[in-house]
Amino acid sequence: MQSEVTILVGKKPLMSYVLACLLSLQQGQNVVVKARGRAIGRAVDVVQVLKNRFVKELKIQDVKLGSEQLTGQDGRTVNVSTIEIKVTQ
Amino acid sequence: MQSEVTILVGKKPLMSYVLACLLSLQQGQNVVVKARGRAIGRAVDVVQVLKNRFVKELKIQDVKLGSEQLTGQDGRTVNVSTIEIKVTQ
Repeated sequence: MQSEVTILVGKKPLMSYVLACLLSLQQGQNVVVKARGRAIGRAVDVVQVLKNRFVKELKIQDVKLGSEQLTGQDGRTVNVSTIEIKVTQ
Repeated sequence: MQSEVTILVGKKPLMSYVLACLLSLQQGQNVVVKARGRAIGRAVDVVQVLKNRFVKELKIQDVKLGSEQLTGQDGRTVNVSTIEIKVTQ
């Protein structure tokens, strides 16, 4: 069975996520690139840079969209959109 | 055959895109929510608000990720990520 690694995209430089994906793929793992809110666009960037520059044969197996409820310090709950992009080599 | 409408998400208020989707779905059309670059997260927001608040039975048929090359005024080309989310009622 292939193991699966989830990489959560946040505010680090794009390339650090691209490299993390690359390393996991080279170890034969499946990778799920996940992000919330404003980082969603960056998660798509990570996958596209990975595909266009490093792993031509990258396959996007599945893209899941969702929402999560976060509670702020003032007790208000906000809905945040999420994305999960599953890729394999 | 069902017709398909593409709604390009940009900088207008979120609800204007949600309403545009809602109207098209109510006319029996399939809707493709599309966005580039920073608007990608907003496209996901549109679909999630549509699903969570208005159309509980919304089905996300397909999510496509891609890149487009844009040429700036200085002649440099930049790669911009894109997303296309196909939804039906």
